[in-house]
Amino acid sequence: MQTIRHDRTDGVLVVTLDRPDQLNAFTVTMADELEETFVRAAADDSVRAVVVTGAGRAFCAGMDLSAEGNVFGLDESKRPTLTDLADLSDPELARIRDTGGRVTLAVHDCTKPVIAAINGAAVGIGATMTLAMDARLMSSRARFGLVFGRLGIVPEAASSWFLPRIVGLPRALDLVYRADILDAAATAEAGLANAVHEPDALLDEALRLADAWTRDRSPVATALTRQLMRRGSALAHPRDAHRLDSLAMFYTSIGDGAEGVAAFREKRAPEFRGKASDLPAFHAEWLDEQR
Amino acid sequence: MQTIRHDRTDGVLVVTLDRPDQLNAFTVTMADELEETFVRAAADDSVRAVVVTGAGRAFCAGMDLSAEGNVFGLDESKRPTLTDLADLSDPELARIRDTGGRVTLAVHDCTKPVIAAINGAAVGIGATMTLAMDARLMSSRARFGLVFGRLGIVPEAASSWFLPRIVGLPRALDLVYRADILDAAATAEAGLANAVHEPDALLDEALRLADAWTRDRSPVATALTRQLMRRGSALAHPRDAHRLDSLAMFYTSIGDGAEGVAAFREKRAPEFRGKASDLPAFHAEWLDEQR
Amino acid sequence: MQTIRHDRTDGVLVVTLDRPDQLNAFTVTMADELEETFVRAAADDSVRAVVVTGAGRAFCAGMDLSAEGNVFGLDESKRPTLTDLADLSDPELARIRDTGGRVTLAVHDCTKPVIAAINGAAVGIGATMTLAMDARLMSSRARFGLVFGRLGIVPEAASSWFLPRIVGLPRALDLVYRADILDAAATAEAGLANAVHEPDALLDEALRLADAWTRDRSPVATALTRQLMRRGSALAHPRDAHRLDSLAMFYTSIGDGAEGVAAFREKRAPEFRGKASDLPAFHAEWLDEQR
Repeated sequence: MQTIRHDRTDGVLVVTLDRPDQLNAFTVTMADELEETFVRAAADDSVRAVVVTGAGRAFCAGMDLSAEGNVFGLDESKRPTLTDLADLSDPELARIRDTGGRVTLAVHDCTKPVIAAINGAAVGIGATMTLAMDARLMSSRARFGLVFGRLGIVPEAASSWFLPRIVGLPRALDLVYRADILDAAATAEAGLANAVHEPDALLDEALRLADAWTRDRSPVATALTRQLMRRGSALAHPRDAHRLDSLAMFYTSIGDGAEGVAAFREKRAPEFRGKASDLPAFHAEWLDEQR
Repeated sequence: MQTIRHDRTDGVLVVTLDRPDQLNAFTVTMADELEETFVRAAADDSVRAVVVTGAGRAFCAGMDLSAEGNVFGLDESKRPTLTDLADLSDPELARIRDTGGRVTLAVHDCTKPVIAAINGAAVGIGATMTLAMDARLMSSRARFGLVFGRLGIVPEAASSWFLPRIVGLPRALDLVYRADILDAAATAEAGLANAVHEPDALLDEALRLADAWTRDRSPVATALTRQLMRRGSALAHPRDAHRLDSLAMFYTSIGDGAEGVAAFREKRAPEFRGKASDLPAFHAEWLDEQR
Repeated sequence: MQTIRHDRTDGVLVVTLDRPDQLNAFTVTMADELEETFVRAAADDSVRAVVVTGAGRAFCAGMDLSAEGNVFGLDESKRPTLTDLADLSDPELARIRDTGGRVTLAVHDCTKPVIAAINGAAVGIGATMTLAMDARLMSSRARFGLVFGRLGIVPEAASSWFLPRIVGLPRALDLVYRADILDAAATAEAGLANAVHEPDALLDEALRLADAWTRDRSPVATALTRQLMRRGSALAHPRDAHRLDSLAMFYTSIGDGAEGVAAFREKRAPEFRGKASDLPAFHAEWLDEQR
């Protein structure tokens, strides 16, 4: 990988955005490498959880405005114009895909919990990519900026789905309209950060959280639980959640749940054998089919 | 009823989970009796509200792991295996229904407000059953545990629909990943409890809240309002809410609302005549048709 | 306009509910004039934002119960009865439209941020009309009452969509069941007010917020962002948000975003040329087609 680094601490994959001289600015290559990282992390049974952090003093300073390339993945010769956008039936328009969204959908679909360890400035896509993650831990020196409005563009990376679910609709509107860069305390006060830590302690705290969430747990139950909560937040009716969790509870109760209950009765640690690489068929139906 | 007790305090039905020697552990019989309770409470015009509490020192310690029986309501001779779950078109799979979800859907569909008076440990289904209720009051000695992850199973009882709507998505994920048992203060801090009360005051406070919500109110307006808020939280667009509340406002404005406005003008207490047992046809369309 | 007043402060349209002798009570005429106001504000490129406040000591004391007229817009000769509501296929029923909902859908669809400057009592529709706005600033002397339950009617104006998205489901249920009139501190504590200000400072603070949100910003990006966040909060899956924001990001990136990025690189203020009166075709598909 050219733009990111992979390190392993026990069962936790630490992904470091690694363009420190460019403040880890986001490029199409970084998007490709992050997307591949989350797909591979899902398939790798030795990975329990993923932590994402940045090399040097920034987390990710946003889209690399100096970089070449077409972040919408379009054939340049057929690139639509403003006028073309009047006709939504144009099949070329269906191919317009924001690069940041490819990454956040991969985070959303991952079968392992993903934790952002925001070590420094997280701006633009550097901020929105973390909204799809399961927790945001901030260094007390970090900053967080949903600055799109200042550039004449819109928040992306499916942040309109995630942000109101994290901070509620009034705060979401206020944050994107103001488009300010917040310090760590203001970020936490806005409900965007789970916790603020001293810079030196940040990565250890992220690893500690990953352990609290996934050590000695069934990776199958964790993967299914992760999608249940995310999907449940958007289902039309509780009976839809009931249909999903009935299947998932049945599946886990005759799998790792049998061992979990036995271990609980016998007052011993469970030894789960399920693998996140081998999930039931219904899990695939919960994911983004377009990826 | 074998596993629960019904008491009446004025217009409030107090339902007590009543297996104190088993810490009120949940069984299929208890599920059946709770489901029947909420259906009957909806039909009984002398009931304004329902309070649910536990006998002895626990609220409900979770599924009774010692109990016999098939909690998914399946014909044992046709019980699917893990392999069967690969084929989601198998009609037997559609019959898999988590027992806890039967109870929470009955709570969700009830036409009366339902208040949890959590007197002691609420663990597993003992915790998730309260998520469907309209408020959770905690004894300062109570505990609350979404412990599924420790047993290798998933949160159930449609909790993926309720939990993010109560505490937001990041907190919901953290709670189910940690799978800890929280004390009353931590439960309130997480946004799961409306209030914490001294143990001796808990039931009185629940009855006081039931009165504040329902005494001298129109049971028709209360029933429609309850479903409007629950459905509205999940509707795709405000115009969908507008369609529902236009009908409900029209209906109530020519029913109990006419008396309510007259009483307001005449500065007297209203005498509402509507009955929750006689709701307009459109209300039935808002409910879970599958029950 | 007969019931409201329009004033302009720089690019901010200040709309004053102007029936002070009736505590600005809501009438069908006021609904028509407000609806027209938000449609016109969207079309008027000299308007960056809208502030709504009340003349005299109230914001809006609710529906004018003394007023003539049929607030549901029905032909009186064909007005349905309670019995008619048993047959939902009756086309006359589809014409039942709550007047308050016409206003809140117009607020929701507006392309400019809308700020409530709640100077005094906001009760009934006076409260629910503000739930569709982007922020609620309260005078320390103001009050806020979702009092429908006391009158035997249901909350209206699509408030079942907005209220749980603002305060969460448990608080929404508690507020509508209690049906109390809250003072400013309690309103803020409930999560309903963005801020509480001294009465004399309220309008200036609202204008200041309007400036912080919209001055030197692209009206196109603001309009698209506003709908993205509102729709995103209710979309079924993040990929749906990804589809919307990919188009919006592409559109803005070749429009005002090109200027925004250039200005950022050149360390100068941007000069956006986009107009909210000329939005891309896909924006229209996001709106309420029924208006």
